[in-house]
Amino acid sequence: MSTFNVGLKKVVDDSYDIEIGYNLYDKLVSDLKSGLVGNIKKYAVITDSVVQDLYAVPIAERLARAGFTVDLFAFPDGEKSKTRETKAIIEDALLERGYKRDCCIIAVGGGVVTDLGGFLAGTFGRGVPFINYATTLLSAADASIGGKTAVDTPLATNLIGLFNQPKKVYIDIDAWKTLPARHIYNGMAEVIKHACLADVQLFYYLMDNLEKIYSFDKEACEYITEANCRIKYNVVMQDEKESGLREILNLGHTVGRAIETLSDYKLLHGEAVSIGLAAQARLSKKLGYVTEDELNAVLALLYKASLPITIPDYIDREALVKKLYTDKKVRNGQLRFVLQSGIGSVMQFGDNVFATPISEDLAREIIYQC
Amino acid sequence: MSTFNVGLKKVVDDSYDIEIGYNLYDKLVSDLKSGLVGNIKKYAVITDSVVQDLYAVPIAERLARAGFTVDLFAFPDGEKSKTRETKAIIEDALLERGYKRDCCIIAVGGGVVTDLGGFLAGTFGRGVPFINYATTLLSAADASIGGKTAVDTPLATNLIGLFNQPKKVYIDIDAWKTLPARHIYNGMAEVIKHACLADVQLFYYLMDNLEKIYSFDKEACEYITEANCRIKYNVVMQDEKESGLREILNLGHTVGRAIETLSDYKLLHGEAVSIGLAAQARLSKKLGYVTEDELNAVLALLYKASLPITIPDYIDREALVKKLYTDKKVRNGQLRFVLQSGIGSVMQFGDNVFATPISEDLAREIIYQC
Repeated sequence: MSTFNVGLKKVVDDSYDIEIGYNLYDKLVSDLKSGLVGNIKKYAVITDSVVQDLYAVPIAERLARAGFTVDLFAFPDGEKSKTRETKAIIEDALLERGYKRDCCIIAVGGGVVTDLGGFLAGTFGRGVPFINYATTLLSAADASIGGKTAVDTPLATNLIGLFNQPKKVYIDIDAWKTLPARHIYNGMAEVIKHACLADVQLFYYLMDNLEKIYSFDKEACEYITEANCRIKYNVVMQDEKESGLREILNLGHTVGRAIETLSDYKLLHGEAVSIGLAAQARLSKKLGYVTEDELNAVLALLYKASLPITIPDYIDREALVKKLYTDKKVRNGQLRFVLQSGIGSVMQFGDNVFATPISEDLAREIIYQC
Repeated sequence: MSTFNVGLKKVVDDSYDIEIGYNLYDKLVSDLKSGLVGNIKKYAVITDSVVQDLYAVPIAERLARAGFTVDLFAFPDGEKSKTRETKAIIEDALLERGYKRDCCIIAVGGGVVTDLGGFLAGTFGRGVPFINYATTLLSAADASIGGKTAVDTPLATNLIGLFNQPKKVYIDIDAWKTLPARHIYNGMAEVIKHACLADVQLFYYLMDNLEKIYSFDKEACEYITEANCRIKYNVVMQDEKESGLREILNLGHTVGRAIETLSDYKLLHGEAVSIGLAAQARLSKKLGYVTEDELNAVLALLYKASLPITIPDYIDREALVKKLYTDKKVRNGQLRFVLQSGIGSVMQFGDNVFATPISEDLAREIIYQC
């Protein structure tokens, strides 16, 4: 009997840049020509059926003109495509076209595309580099920083995936103009979430400037994008693997994710999160962590942002209570919530503990109120 | 337009112990009680239909008696199960039974189980810890060090997966006794590969002691297991992510993997690798990197180990040539081989370059000779 130690201590540098701007195609191509991902000549552009013609084709054309080998892989748009099956279909298509480990994935689109593309890149050939070209407000707000990639399964959203950092993220604000209004509101939910949990100044900025943002005012759009990056960065930097602090980014997601699944994705992610934010604010009020005025301010901002704050009638309340138990924050069979502490801050419940156990009865009471 | 740098430089320690011994169930349980994977109470034992009753059930029973929550997930044995579909089935079963991120995976079995279990652990809840309990000579020789995990797809073996290090590896030599003889030979192929590429002393030790190993002589089995760990460790330590040196572990695998797939897994992995080792030795001889005597010694050792050294008649030679192009070492459409330099060493073709381009004509010539 003997023991053998495999020593694998090392310094890893996953740092990357986020570029915020307008029409960043040419910047992307020039970055790649300058060696952003080394000497790679082969690029797989992954996108969805809506973004394909708008942004993915122009990017692929520019890459081809620059002398790179490029192929485009598009899947039907929507959260319903964020599955293991879609990932497998694209993997097979990549292998079919001779892609090996000497390639780079470029994910062009919203959160579904970047989540799926980043996960796929992380396991293709045991990991190839990837780049996110974010075309929606939601992906700018939520998916661009943090390296969380995943797919959904019938039993849970985002539970199969990886922490995998891109080589660079491009946030193309110009692309927001082509989004249907509902998708802009959708993205705004995550911006409001960030304001609620970390930035009271951003919260009131949003209250005063929503119309400007919704009419794509350059200064306002850049302001919120940068604020988002800063907030999320501060959290992710301290806890990349979600062992404690990062859970605060889950604000509104306990109820939100459950509603999203139960609505069979009729509700967009941000819409479901909006209802979840309203629910946790009510719960925070009930527990004395926010005042009545603060609760009302949260509800008012969500409402003003054209987001839902009540649970649709077609969602069965008891099914929703049951669904809460599929949340990843559940520990030893106990529901756990992240809760606001006033506006711009969250409650801390111990050393590095930011989610607190909530009884099923209390969760049910709040759900029946929403 | 602005740029935001996400700084994610950090020290990562993926070090772990390999314990080599006999009947290591109780050691495993006591390690877990002592906090090997922290405070985790929930264990998913993943295994195959053959290993299940022999080793997985006894381990699960001991874990349960120690007060842990434990569930057992078994899939049909064999390389054909090493697929995305099997992974998805087990993921769903884990979710169904309420597994979240606060669990640990214990893979009990051979290389298929540890490859699949390690990959599954790496993406479940974006990564949970895992432990390998290796019950075959092949997994002791090949899969226990290095952190390569993967599944096969219709178009390629091992191309979808992760580099993911276990928390500990147990090599239970006692378990080899329950293996069919063919599976012992199968594992020996990887041992011989290691000897060919890095350890001339091991090579001649094997030549002299094969009978002892095949009759499970304690000293001989421990000697080869430790030699294997040492060789693989020296390579993996220097190049965990296979950017250069680690490619030498691919010796014999260019032809080997292609044959394995084309045989529709009638050939075991080690059997296919044995033919691949014979093929590369012939190629090395042809290119003047090994002498006729050295080639014959390699062929003799493989033969003595009851391993095949010629390509079965039912494998179409032209299909095999074509299949070589699915090898992960292919660069810019060009086949690349790792080749022996005498016995116990491989050729180096430049700074950190250990695989060399081989023309299709030359590859075909060797294949028709085998």
